[in-house]
Amino acid sequence: MTHEAGIPLGISFRLLSDTPQDAAARVVNDVVVGDYRDLATLRAFAKGCDVITFDHEHVPTEHLRALEADGIPVRPGPGALVHAQDKGVMRARLTSLGVACPRHRIVTDPADVVRFADEIGGFPVVLKTVRGGYDGKGVWLVRSEEDAGDAFRAGVPVLGEERVAFRRELAANVVRSPHGQAVAYPVVESRQVDGVCDTVIAPAPGLAPELSAQAQETALRIAGELGVVGHLAVELFETEDGRVLVNELAMRPHNSGHWTQDGAVTSQFANHLRAVLDLPLGDPRPRAPWTVMANVLGGAYPEMYPAYLHCMARDPGLKIHMYGKDVRPGRKVGHVTTFGDDLDEVTDRARHAADYLRGLIDE
Amino acid sequence: MTHEAGIPLGISFRLLSDTPQDAAARVVNDVVVGDYRDLATLRAFAKGCDVITFDHEHVPTEHLRALEADGIPVRPGPGALVHAQDKGVMRARLTSLGVACPRHRIVTDPADVVRFADEIGGFPVVLKTVRGGYDGKGVWLVRSEEDAGDAFRAGVPVLGEERVAFRRELAANVVRSPHGQAVAYPVVESRQVDGVCDTVIAPAPGLAPELSAQAQETALRIAGELGVVGHLAVELFETEDGRVLVNELAMRPHNSGHWTQDGAVTSQFANHLRAVLDLPLGDPRPRAPWTVMANVLGGAYPEMYPAYLHCMARDPGLKIHMYGKDVRPGRKVGHVTTFGDDLDEVTDRARHAADYLRGLIDE
Repeated sequence: MTHEAGIPLGISFRLLSDTPQDAAARVVNDVVVGDYRDLATLRAFAKGCDVITFDHEHVPTEHLRALEADGIPVRPGPGALVHAQDKGVMRARLTSLGVACPRHRIVTDPADVVRFADEIGGFPVVLKTVRGGYDGKGVWLVRSEEDAGDAFRAGVPVLGEERVAFRRELAANVVRSPHGQAVAYPVVESRQVDGVCDTVIAPAPGLAPELSAQAQETALRIAGELGVVGHLAVELFETEDGRVLVNELAMRPHNSGHWTQDGAVTSQFANHLRAVLDLPLGDPRPRAPWTVMANVLGGAYPEMYPAYLHCMARDPGLKIHMYGKDVRPGRKVGHVTTFGDDLDEVTDRARHAADYLRGLIDE
Repeated sequence: MTHEAGIPLGISFRLLSDTPQDAAARVVNDVVVGDYRDLATLRAFAKGCDVITFDHEHVPTEHLRALEADGIPVRPGPGALVHAQDKGVMRARLTSLGVACPRHRIVTDPADVVRFADEIGGFPVVLKTVRGGYDGKGVWLVRSEEDAGDAFRAGVPVLGEERVAFRRELAANVVRSPHGQAVAYPVVESRQVDGVCDTVIAPAPGLAPELSAQAQETALRIAGELGVVGHLAVELFETEDGRVLVNELAMRPHNSGHWTQDGAVTSQFANHLRAVLDLPLGDPRPRAPWTVMANVLGGAYPEMYPAYLHCMARDPGLKIHMYGKDVRPGRKVGHVTTFGDDLDEVTDRARHAADYLRGLIDE
């Protein structure tokens, strides 16, 4: 999707891909297949690149520092990116900045989890490995010392957090360029099912203007303080008592910003590229009163084509974005977007298409 | 741009390109470099393609018939495409269908041009080679027998046409699929400078509803009668006496439809692909009251990058589409699009950016 956004800007890509079957490798014309965890591979890849950016945050921080030391512009830089890679570093830094977060601390073993639970008023406690988790992986909701064992099995440091009583999840997406220009997209509501983002509604319905402003300001402040270059997604909890707390950070185009491809004047992908290349940023404003994005997850049927035809025929205004991935149950293989004036109608259309493509409904 | 539109649809391309430097060859990942006039090249290229389509109409009709005979789906097929390749065939067919065209006939030599001028009430006469012309090339406005010599020099049959007294030029863009589904985009005004499209305004300002409907119906009828599959652009004259006459046909995404990338629910590129693959067509409706597209022509300065930065900074809502072509004076190297509620403002923004990028203005 970043390549797609780069075409009209005249931007050429070289892609480092795990495998030739990677979704991006199917559409980019200069593909290097290699392991992003290997510094020699990264160094050879980086030769001749004007700038390096990412579509995930798993490249080891120390390798990115080595590339930077070689004189390769890495955007976002490792000094910023580490806050999206390591939840322990992120929580410590945000707390030092006075940004509201769930109560948290690093926990060392199950007995320490019990002590942490006592500190915050009792179980349940959320445990997260500080690195490597996503889409609900590397996250445990535990109610006892016995429950806590799994989180420590990987040998990765573990962060304990209070379970926040939240009304809903929000995301504040902002983009910042090296010279400090920044734009903020409307704050969105992100609905999760089984730890995976299911539906994003832009803007978040009924969000109090002061909370919306606070969420945008928080995201812009984090981007500035951490020196983020490119797209920053700040995932937030809107608490039952009317606060916004930071949940996670992502420093790349993010699922909560996919709606911008069809719903904003400038997409998150275009603005990420504009930021990474230090071009002036584009207008982040929405193009319709409501835009809804629904993720398409793989269902029981590996062949999605007949469903794809049905959805296109049923709703000519539906925007379909398939990733060219093989269908596996529960895997994100695409998303759909709808936009219009009536929130219920726009939501129903997006949910219908996503559910039909997954095989959850057949009419 | 067709590749760009194909990415979200999950469509993979193989590109036959004249040179590795071709704009499309820079972004597509499966490129065959070869001569589209060579049947053996075309046959080798076509192996393994599900369907063949075009971004120009210069592939020889007989080669396309040979591919069709080999069982390769060619869309639009040669039986339709010949009407966009050969202006003589096009005029004869449209006339037989009763579609209003400028008065015309094939002329054999300068003396015959004089006879044709007499038949239509005198000079000037427009001469066009029946094949190979575009952007004002292969077209002559002649006022005498002596003037007429140039048109016959290439040895290609020449069509004579009356010079139409027109208020303005319009274009009706429609898309038709193999099973006969069709959609019509709003009729646009196309402003030409020196025979090259300069600005397109969607929808055509102040166009009488009955002329708009007539233009759309004419385009849909031509698409149906000729068996067009894919995008059909019908370039029209709106005459001073209130008629619409067909000027040219193009059977591919067309400059007069570039506005749809940013201005319509479904772009001409996406709908061309949907048609060519016999997928249900997408909604052609406009997303804003006014969308204006201005072509970016190369100017005196080969380096356009500083101007590009200036335009992005000046107008964050400007949509820039660069083609990755080397800049040469007068060459179409990109286009810009603006949209909004106020026609004058939207037009001024697009014209400013195009003129600035060309180096015609410096503030």
